[in-house]
Amino acid sequence: MSESDGSASERDTEAVIMEATFRALREHGYADLRMRHIGEEMELTRQVIHYHFEGKYDLLSSFLEYVIDQYEGSVDVDRDTDPRTELEARIDQCLFGPEFEEFTHWDRMKVYHELYTYAQNDEQHREIFNEHYERIRGSIVEVVEDGIKQGVFRDVDAERMGQLVTDAIHAARGRRISLGHDDAPEEARRAIHEFILDPLCIDAEGDRYS
Amino acid sequence: MSESDGSASERDTEAVIMEATFRALREHGYADLRMRHIGEEMELTRQVIHYHFEGKYDLLSSFLEYVIDQYEGSVDVDRDTDPRTELEARIDQCLFGPEFEEFTHWDRMKVYHELYTYAQNDEQHREIFNEHYERIRGSIVEVVEDGIKQGVFRDVDAERMGQLVTDAIHAARGRRISLGHDDAPEEARRAIHEFILDPLCIDAEGDRYS
Repeated sequence: MSESDGSASERDTEAVIMEATFRALREHGYADLRMRHIGEEMELTRQVIHYHFEGKYDLLSSFLEYVIDQYEGSVDVDRDTDPRTELEARIDQCLFGPEFEEFTHWDRMKVYHELYTYAQNDEQHREIFNEHYERIRGSIVEVVEDGIKQGVFRDVDAERMGQLVTDAIHAARGRRISLGHDDAPEEARRAIHEFILDPLCIDAEGDRYS
Repeated sequence: MSESDGSASERDTEAVIMEATFRALREHGYADLRMRHIGEEMELTRQVIHYHFEGKYDLLSSFLEYVIDQYEGSVDVDRDTDPRTELEARIDQCLFGPEFEEFTHWDRMKVYHELYTYAQNDEQHREIFNEHYERIRGSIVEVVEDGIKQGVFRDVDAERMGQLVTDAIHAARGRRISLGHDDAPEEARRAIHEFILDPLCIDAEGDRYS
């Protein structure tokens, strides 16, 4: 399945199947999931699933891409925003996610983190996650580089900072899901601001290190 | 199973069962693991396993505690070490782990991270992980507080810094395992040094923010 081809109605059908997959996963869990469980969660006939996907693995790969697309597509920052504000907006979006009607960001992230752990044994999923990781980290790196160019950020290794911020976000989400630390994203937000963003900014009010 | 009670030979037996569990997990994976697989991986009779553990779940909980004990017990820092050096030693140990004869730190961490993801549905494992998380974070917090008292660290929120460092370590390990980023721990080490430890230190050589 690819987002770029197919008509609008085909994409709608795929979205229906993807949301049915969420409901089926919530009901049966990843390890026990069967194609028929997904069929039971939607009004379209099961044949529609088999028309769109070759099997459970193909469907779950598309599902992973669907979850990632929603997550990545949700960040929308004004071009004129200053680098610090843009960085904060991107970090918040990764930590707290967009709002959805039926399944929350956290329902979606639970599946994301479960598949992430399984990716060690799954080359295709690993590649999807790696591309996603590069895009998320890259979007942080880009803003840091912009800020350095504009003279509002110190001259740091932007790649390395992007990696640290991305790691801190990922781990905080994982702690909320696996350990039940509901305040982990908010705490991570504060820690990133205090220990990474404040020292990054030149002459900013929050610059305790100048 | 508890480390504090039982004779030396009982603890030896338990270690034999635990190492057999590693071999069985490598062979069969977590989801398909059966008690008899563990029996096949050791020279003691299977009855010994049933004598020590009530079932697969009980055994895996003990196994998780065994992996965590090895990991935590491996940090040994001299009392007179200065706070920055001690902090670096603790971070290195968490990132790179101790050396083992048969299974490496990473074989052990693979199991650790897999069980971590499953912990969202498992109250007992979640509690074990939470206690471990508190100890690891606490050991970082303690050194940061020592450094502040000694006047070599800036007066930061030590709890929050401990949490950020622990998160960064966890995520880097996870990336190495799930995404195959072999240099993730080394990169995380550099990022923590550059963006967290250097600004923390007062009048240190590496203090680019003073």
